[in-house]
Order: sequence, then structure tokens, then C-alpha cells
Amino acid sequence: MGLIVQKYGGSSVADADGIKRVAARIAAAKRAGQQVVVVVSAMGDTTDNLIDLANQVTPIPTGRELDMLLTAGERISMALLAMAIGNLGFEARSFTGSQAGIITDSSHGRARVIDVTPGRITEALNDGAIAIVAGFQGISQDTKDVTTLGRGGSDTTAVALAAALEADVCEIYTDVDGVFSADPRVVPTARKLKSVTYEEMLELAASGAKVLHLRCVEYARRFDLPIHVRSSFSNLEGTWVVKDRPEGADMEQAIISGIAHDKSEAKITIVGVPDRTGVAARIFQSIADADINIDMIVQNVSAADTGLTDISFTLPKTEGSNATTILKKIQGEIGYLSIQYDDQIGKLSLVGAGMRSHPGVTATFFAAMADAGVNIEMISTSEIRISIVCRQADLDSAVRAAHSAFDLDSDQIEAVVYGGTGR
Amino acid sequence: MGLIVQKYGGSSVADADGIKRVAARIAAAKRAGQQVVVVVSAMGDTTDNLIDLANQVTPIPTGRELDMLLTAGERISMALLAMAIGNLGFEARSFTGSQAGIITDSSHGRARVIDVTPGRITEALNDGAIAIVAGFQGISQDTKDVTTLGRGGSDTTAVALAAALEADVCEIYTDVDGVFSADPRVVPTARKLKSVTYEEMLELAASGAKVLHLRCVEYARRFDLPIHVRSSFSNLEGTWVVKDRPEGADMEQAIISGIAHDKSEAKITIVGVPDRTGVAARIFQSIADADINIDMIVQNVSAADTGLTDISFTLPKTEGSNATTILKKIQGEIGYLSIQYDDQIGKLSLVGAGMRSHPGVTATFFAAMADAGVNIEMISTSEIRISIVCRQADLDSAVRAAHSAFDLDSDQIEAVVYGGTGR
Repeated sequence: MGLIVQKYGGSSVADADGIKRVAARIAAAKRAGQQVVVVVSAMGDTTDNLIDLANQVTPIPTGRELDMLLTAGERISMALLAMAIGNLGFEARSFTGSQAGIITDSSHGRARVIDVTPGRITEALNDGAIAIVAGFQGISQDTKDVTTLGRGGSDTTAVALAAALEADVCEIYTDVDGVFSADPRVVPTARKLKSVTYEEMLELAASGAKVLHLRCVEYARRFDLPIHVRSSFSNLEGTWVVKDRPEGADMEQAIISGIAHDKSEAKITIVGVPDRTGVAARIFQSIADADINIDMIVQNVSAADTGLTDISFTLPKTEGSNATTILKKIQGEIGYLSIQYDDQIGKLSLVGAGMRSHPGVTATFFAAMADAGVNIEMISTSEIRISIVCRQADLDSAVRAAHSAFDLDSDQIEAVVYGGTGR
Repeated sequence: MGLIVQKYGGSSVADADGIKRVAARIAAAKRAGQQVVVVVSAMGDTTDNLIDLANQVTPIPTGRELDMLLTAGERISMALLAMAIGNLGFEARSFTGSQAGIITDSSHGRARVIDVTPGRITEALNDGAIAIVAGFQGISQDTKDVTTLGRGGSDTTAVALAAALEADVCEIYTDVDGVFSADPRVVPTARKLKSVTYEEMLELAASGAKVLHLRCVEYARRFDLPIHVRSSFSNLEGTWVVKDRPEGADMEQAIISGIAHDKSEAKITIVGVPDRTGVAARIFQSIADADINIDMIVQNVSAADTGLTDISFTLPKTEGSNATTILKKIQGEIGYLSIQYDDQIGKLSLVGAGMRSHPGVTATFFAAMADAGVNIEMISTSEIRISIVCRQADLDSAVRAAHSAFDLDSDQIEAVVYGGTGR
């Protein structure tokens, strides 16, 4: 008898009908002879509504109390789901993150899982019951306070539980059919991928693909746990995220697995930075101290006559004004000339393990960009990824051009919308 | 430094403004040098909305899952209240029933408190923080599952915590100014009582007064814990529920403390019951086996010529059809003639410890009823209570007549509405 962990996002359990639909799917898995553990997010807009309420009573809720508040969301969805399954004749027991043994550190709002002790889940399974577990939440090891895991939290709960229970697979149910070769809203001929490797999925997630969160993929890679990303609205096979593609699959696999794009970043250019040792370190340390994640960094060769150089980097638009303020504070100390802030950029990333053995990828890619009239402003690469920054207005046509250049287009248009999984 | 436990019902925290108002009141108590523990119910309609959701997914939710669902309500209100207090510059920590050490049996939906281990509350108080505790909920001793305490649950949480923490007083905040000599909606001249004894309050609660639940008064009496019932919408002194009235207070105190009335009961009369030993026992055992609470019982003297008697009893209207069905099942066995069901009755109860030393109360009361043209259909008495059943249409004028007959009318009309405390 196999053991599967299924995770359903907020859009799959947005209302009573959604909950009943999901319950029927879970019952089917149980009927097929599986042991089933289900991780569920809060219903639809519940989390946003709770945050609204918090903002009505205080501008700055404390982390501990905000976590206490938000975890009410999964408590509601999981109890309702357990009831709906009970109504189909199967026993289901719901468990909070704490009851399921999701032990975290004490960083409220973005706690990290440090241990999983799923004794009560195992007990429920041994009793023949289906276990329903609240996603996104845990309990802190030292203070025994309720914590939340932050973005991608429910996916992380599912993968962490699946690893601890040594499940055969972790199924992540979402509102799209799987991982696509590009966002189908931009590229109507995008193909659903049968499989991607952990490495590729990490690069795609880091580059703007929203279907799976970076963190849960990292967790799955560490435990070599297969993830199956699929739609809760159909019975189609989705995308498998695995260590290596199945034997033989490589033959048909394109060099490039997928193309991610991202419009959420901005670019800051610091003009006229003195080209001295330690200056760049000083700049990026100030940014890091403010907990701002930066992405690509480019430094031009300094002009020989002035000894000055320009440094550009990208960062989330939401951190733009924060970073600008910090940089202005150290202008006197560093002695740069000016700052330019540009929030009209777009980022495109080609990802594919096949890139390692195919040196011509960059040339093909850049030629496609040139043909499409897209000007490349920044470049960054990893072993299996090439990212460029261009004008945001050019981004969609850049994605389509790259998709065609690497023969990723499918024969038929996929009638799905590519979206996020919520939390 | 004193320690007080305050309990706020759902109507006091119905929205963000209500929560902020309650937070200000709690902060004032803290500022005055008190250690403060607050028990809070779910916001306004939250519980009803959650029950609606449950009914949308299944007609018969299991007790365990319904409790898991409903306890989300207090989780939301307590976290918001803690945040609102934090916004006023005081530290507040919220605790679930489980975290607060409210240990119960496993009867989901109507669990009984069997132990209180408030270690985390004491710790929070010692740290100088205000502790906010979810009302209405606990954790079962044997299965470690979340439970709810049923009707009057939040009041019971407050009194149980106050007893365990040896608080000076348990303040029950509600939407009325205290306990009144009668329902002001029926008797506009009803007076707010300065104090009532546990005994009197128990009789009033059992007779239909909704301001405090029987169960929490029983708990307070067992631990001799003073309860102060007062309004969260004013700063007026409310009603103290205590073991004995303060010295001297008896002098001004009327013989009768208060008059309760109840329109929620029905009367069943079993006509022509054979007057044999064991017949009444058989009848009431069948009713008790179905978990139906009956209230007053009257049996007439049997007619000498037939050896048949009539038995009447009152019970909640909601149990009427259930009880009738049970009685019809045993008609053959018992051999009674017929059943009459009457849901047009009203019950009026006079309550007062002074009754013990004033034998004329019954005469005065019955004379007042006769003058008001009220026909008395059933009578039952305790040491400090006289209850009658009359036509429901006559009940309001009966209450007013009794109120005047015992000089309970105040000089001025109280401008409040007498209502329930929610759960």
C-alpha cells in the first residue's frame, strides 16, 4: 500500500463546492488503496480578509499575534475538508501544524521547518483514517508559539511531511495543469512539461515561474522526494519534478526545458563609482543589512581616464525606495555621482539541463533576440540558465521569440491559464 | 497588585471598533496596576457563519471536526484583541484554550472542564504581559483533541481560569448593565441589582434569565469566586454575584431579588395514566434516556373511581416532538389514554433568599396574579423560588403584576435592553 501526500491550494478550496470536489478526489485516492495525507491552504481570500482585519486594529501587528490570526484560515478549511470527506463515508481527522509535528524556528511570518515529528499523523493512518493537515503553519521549538512559514508555506509543509513520512510522492494540486515551457498567457503554444529536474525547477522558480516555490523544491531535492504538480480541476497527468529525467526521456527532451519571465523587478544603476577595492562590498553590505534580496549585478569596466565605473543591480520593485534611501545615505562616504532607478525592465530566463552539453545555446538565443528587435541590457548565467534583462515592453515578444527559437512550441494550443499557487 | 479576569462576549468584539474599545478598557485596568487576564468570545456572527459553512459541506459534521472549525472564531478575535492592545503600548499575548491549560473531557460540543493548568498564563503575567485567552474551548485530557464547552462556554472559561489563578474577581462584560429585577423589555421600571447570591443567580439562570449561564455560576459558587456582571459599553458598576450579600445590604434588600420568565418551554400532559407503582418512573426514564431535560412535573390525585391520573411536565419546545414520539412508543406498555401537547405556555419565577424568612410571599404572589386575571396552571417551588406556569399570552402582564406587588419598581426607567451574553 502506497502513501501519498496531496496538497491543495486556496483556489482549489475557495468555497463549499470546491471543498466537496477536493473531498471526492481524496476519497478516490483512498478507495484506490492509498494511505492519504492531505495538506490544505486557507480558503480563497481568507488570508487577505484576516490581514485586512489586522490592519483595522493596528498599523503594525506583532508577528506572534499575526501568526495566531492567520492560522485560523487553515483551521477552517481543514475542518471543513475533513467533514466533507466524512460525508463520503471515509474517516478523516484534521491536525494543526503543531499537532502534525511541524517544528520550526521562532521567526514569525517566515519560520523555517527544523524538525517534523508526525506521530499523530502516523497514528491516524494506522487507524485507517485520512489525515488532513493545516498548511503554512508550525510551532516554534523553544517558545511553543504558533508560527507561519511565509510564502510557499503550504507547499513546504506538504514536502516536509512527505519526506518525514517517506511518502512515495508529494502531489501539489493547483489551478494549472502543471509546469509549462513558458507562461501560456504570453506564449499560447507553450507545452506542459512531462518532467523537470529539481535543478531546472529551482532555476525556473528563482526566475519568476510561480507554480512551485523555490523553498519546497529545495526541500524535495534534499530528500529526493518526487513532486507531481497537477490540476485539481482535471484528472490529467501533470509535471513530475524529479532528480533525473526517466531513461530515454532525454532523447525527446529539448535542450531548453522552459522559459521563465519576471516583471516584478527594478534596476538601480549607481553612476560614477570610484573603482577602489572594497567599494562594491560596502554598497552591497548596506543593501544586505536591510534584508533586501538583490538578483543580477553588472559592473562595467571603468573608464581609464576617470577611474570611475557604473554598477547596476536588479531587485524587487517593492524594495526600490528602501534601497534608494539607503544608497543616498552612503553617497558621501562612497563618493559616487548619481543613482538611476528604472522600474520598466523585464527579465527572461532560459532554463535547461541540456544547456551543459550544447555550447551553441547562447548564440541561438541572442540571435533570436536580435531578430525580434530586443535590446539586451544585462546578462547573467548559471550552468543551466541564461537570463537577460530587456525593456519590459519588449518582454512578451522576447519570450515568444525564444520559445520558437528552441522549438518549444507544441502542436496544439493549451487552453489553460498559468498562475500562482497562492501560499 | 490585584489579579482580575475579564470576559468579553461576541457582541462586545463584533467588529474592529468594538475590539479597539475593549482594548482601551483592558489597557485602563492594566494602567491602574492590575494583572489582567482576558477571556474573549468569537466576533459577532463568526460562529453562526462557520456553522453555515459546515452545513454546506455535510448535513452531520462530526463533533471533533466541528469543534476544530468553531475554535477558529476565538482564535481570530483573541489575536486581533492582542494586536489592538499592543497598539496601545502594552504587551498582550493570546493563548488558545489548549495553551491556557483548559483541560476537558472528550465530549465534543459540550465538554466539561476537568482541570485547569494555566502555567503559560502565569508566565505571561509574571513577564508583565496581559494574557488573552480564547473562550469556549479546551483540549481533551485523553485524546489531546480540541474541544468546545457548549452553551455558556466562554463564561465558564473565565470563571475556571479565575478560580485556578485565584483572581480577586471575574468580570463578565456583556451588552447590558447587569442583572435586573426583571427583563426591562417587559418591565420598564425594572431595577439593576447591586448584588445577588450564587443561589439566587442559579435559580434566576435556571428560570430563564439569560445574562449568566447556570454552569459558570455553579463553578463560581464552588470556588467562592465573586463575579461582576457589567456592560462593556459603559463604566457603570454592574451586579455582583457573591456568596452572601454585604452586611447591611439586606436591610434595603427586597424579599424578592428578581423575576425571571421563560417562553421557551412547552407542556406535555399524559392523560389517564394507571396509578400504579413504577409507571411514573418508566415514563421519565424513557424521556431521560433520550437526553431530554424536563423542568416542572405535576401529578394530580387520581380519581378514586377510575384508578387513573394525569401527569403533566414541561420541557424545551425544541424537544417536544422527540418526547411525544417516545411517549407514543410506550403507550401500549403503560396503557395511558392520550397525550396533549401545549406550546402556548409561559413560566414566571420569583427568586429571593428573603423568601425563607417571609412566609407570606406565596399569598401575596397569588393574589397579584388573581388581580391581574392570570390563571395559574402549574406550580413548583424551591427554598428560594416560586415558579408558575400560565398562558403565554398572559405572561408579560403577570411579570409586571408580580414586579409591582413586591415593590421592585425603581424610581426611574432604565434605558437598557436585557439580552443574552452569547456564548
